[in-house]
Amino acid sequence: MEILKSPKEAVNFRNNLKGSVGFVPTMGALHEGHLSLIKKAREENDNVIVSIFVNPTQFLPGEDFNKYPRRLEADFEICKRAGVDAVFTPNPENMYTDDEILIKAPKIKGYILEGFFRPGHFDGVLQVVNKLFNIIRPTRAYFGKKDAQQLYLIKQMVKNFFFNIEIVEGETVREKDGLALSSRNIYLSDEERKRALSISKALKRAAKLSTKTDDIETIKKEMLDILEVDELQYIAFVDRDFNYIQKIQPGNTIVLIAAYVGTTRLIDNIYI
Amino acid sequence: MEILKSPKEAVNFRNNLKGSVGFVPTMGALHEGHLSLIKKAREENDNVIVSIFVNPTQFLPGEDFNKYPRRLEADFEICKRAGVDAVFTPNPENMYTDDEILIKAPKIKGYILEGFFRPGHFDGVLQVVNKLFNIIRPTRAYFGKKDAQQLYLIKQMVKNFFFNIEIVEGETVREKDGLALSSRNIYLSDEERKRALSISKALKRAAKLSTKTDDIETIKKEMLDILEVDELQYIAFVDRDFNYIQKIQPGNTIVLIAAYVGTTRLIDNIYI
Repeated sequence: MEILKSPKEAVNFRNNLKGSVGFVPTMGALHEGHLSLIKKAREENDNVIVSIFVNPTQFLPGEDFNKYPRRLEADFEICKRAGVDAVFTPNPENMYTDDEILIKAPKIKGYILEGFFRPGHFDGVLQVVNKLFNIIRPTRAYFGKKDAQQLYLIKQMVKNFFFNIEIVEGETVREKDGLALSSRNIYLSDEERKRALSISKALKRAAKLSTKTDDIETIKKEMLDILEVDELQYIAFVDRDFNYIQKIQPGNTIVLIAAYVGTTRLIDNIYI
Repeated sequence: MEILKSPKEAVNFRNNLKGSVGFVPTMGALHEGHLSLIKKAREENDNVIVSIFVNPTQFLPGEDFNKYPRRLEADFEICKRAGVDAVFTPNPENMYTDDEILIKAPKIKGYILEGFFRPGHFDGVLQVVNKLFNIIRPTRAYFGKKDAQQLYLIKQMVKNFFFNIEIVEGETVREKDGLALSSRNIYLSDEERKRALSISKALKRAAKLSTKTDDIETIKKEMLDILEVDELQYIAFVDRDFNYIQKIQPGNTIVLIAAYVGTTRLIDNIYI
């Protein structure tokens, strides 16, 4: 497995590849969620490249950029065992210049929900993914549905920027009890971990209720009864294009939650 | 010669090309300046694609988007005679969507000089060129030095976005008397046309003087004596990276002028 430390090395590596290229962009601290994307990429492509880059521009001031978990050696081992051909681990200095050309997430869908509570977050996400797409020039790129709004915006970027890349969606991977995997789960104490579980429970309840009623207020009320979080930022019901909806649309609805448990901000969602 | 009317048609055409692709993006109303870029592209590449698209997002409210000269049939004829393989003529509806992901020109170099007098102009330029680059995926793209700041920013976009594209610079083409060719010259009356000439004269004078003195104030004073414009927006001295300079740096200086003659806004520059 190759370790590519600069965009230049990555471009050279890419130029010598034959056949299709599957690309899994990550911030490292890899868990089973990432691994399921990597496995999918491995099955579907001649070559697989994983990037590990804790991208500074998608963290807001005061967020956890500095304490975000970094365990590069363990991540390399995971990638190696999964049959990854190359890991791209650039640093901010060779990804960014002074006085950069910036990308602005769409005014509406980039600034609702996650974009409302983390204004500018998606600007940074799109900025780095645009760079990564041009460096790696993948045939297919793999993103998890846990970051549903990010996934939607990446698909919009592919459209708006006319990327010739297929975006492949990975299902959210969960612990046996239902907690969505996240690199940030390690921040949780045992007590918080138990209460964090109420998020996936509330979503599961929403999915079940939605087979009986399309009334969002009814569903929301039951979800609020289940939630044991410290600060609920939103429960939202949107269609698959992230338009707010007034009634459940079976097969075209995403229910999303963002909440703090202790000082840890968690997001989760369910497609119904 | 193929006429490609939508991004989809252009992508399909591009996917079937073998060998290198030279790309000349234009807003049409082609003149000898464009033609010199097209000829260069023809010499240096297996395939040549010209785009003709009056891009709405690079015009500010109140600018000449609606009256910008459009003569598509004449442009096709010019391209055909120059041996162009395909002309890409999309329309705004298939280039843009609602709630677009936007590109912001760099805060400093995108908002000085042209960017100061036309704030947001370069956002639109970079936005459309980014799209065009992804649609056409050229080996080489051709831009004229008359739009020197645009050329600089395009080169920066290639760096920031990691495009695998060579940017080829074309010299400014001039009328015999020195007036820089521009699609906007047709707006000039005979009397204005005469006074417009003072712009290239002032620049020529600056180049000549710079062999004797590196003092910008001295040079600027003589330029002001020559200029017969109605509203001078700027005379500027920058290095090739668009940093303002205090003294002439031979081989690393651009002198730029923007001015109104009548109601027509003209720009010109000289590399010294």
